[in-house]
Amino acid sequence: MGVETRGFVFGTLMADAIGIPFVPCRKAGKLPGTVERVTYGLEYGSATLEMQKVPELAGKRTIVVDDVLATGGTLAAAIELAKGSGLDVVYSVVFAELAFLNGTAKVPVPVHTLVRL
Amino acid sequence: MGVETRGFVFGTLMADAIGIPFVPCRKAGKLPGTVERVTYGLEYGSATLEMQKVPELAGKRTIVVDDVLATGGTLAAAIELAKGSGLDVVYSVVFAELAFLNGTAKVPVPVHTLVRL
Repeated sequence: MGVETRGFVFGTLMADAIGIPFVPCRKAGKLPGTVERVTYGLEYGSATLEMQKVPELAGKRTIVVDDVLATGGTLAAAIELAKGSGLDVVYSVVFAELAFLNGTAKVPVPVHTLVRL
Repeated sequence: MGVETRGFVFGTLMADAIGIPFVPCRKAGKLPGTVERVTYGLEYGSATLEMQKVPELAGKRTIVVDDVLATGGTLAAAIELAKGSGLDVVYSVVFAELAFLNGTAKVPVPVHTLVRL
């Protein structure tokens, strides 16, 4: 699963390399069909993420991918959404982590980071 | 070059398969650094697309990728932007084309369509 928008760039390539389906996690109102959604708090206000209901994916081992891990709110919400839809989230990957914000504390799965800032 | 957002999904995979760089074409205000931009008319109002200035790409043969071709305004604008930055746009690819809107008439390069609706 890739988180909009830059998670789509990394996520599609990773899914293709591994040979598994890619699932987009999008901002509210962008996905067609029946969706699951999660609303979470930001520093100011709140945001909503959505994913399509795909019953065939229930129980599948899943990696959630985003570009930057800051406070961890978005990544944690995406993982909550995936788990709520029955995906077995085993891992998350981010390109860069702002380590001084300690965002991994909010994320309920191991985070693999390419660049720590 | 992939056009935000779903052009990122198709475009990254195509660039990876061919072994060439992927360039994102984004909505206004999303890209860091120095950008080129183009503003174009929509049915109601207007929109702006941006790409980063990458002098190394000047003269490179380029495919512009988007998900859906409707009236052709967005794809034509993305191609104008790429050409204005010195890219040699040889081709465009869309997943689906709403053929009855005759959008290809606006697009100044050949369009390869996977699904015509």
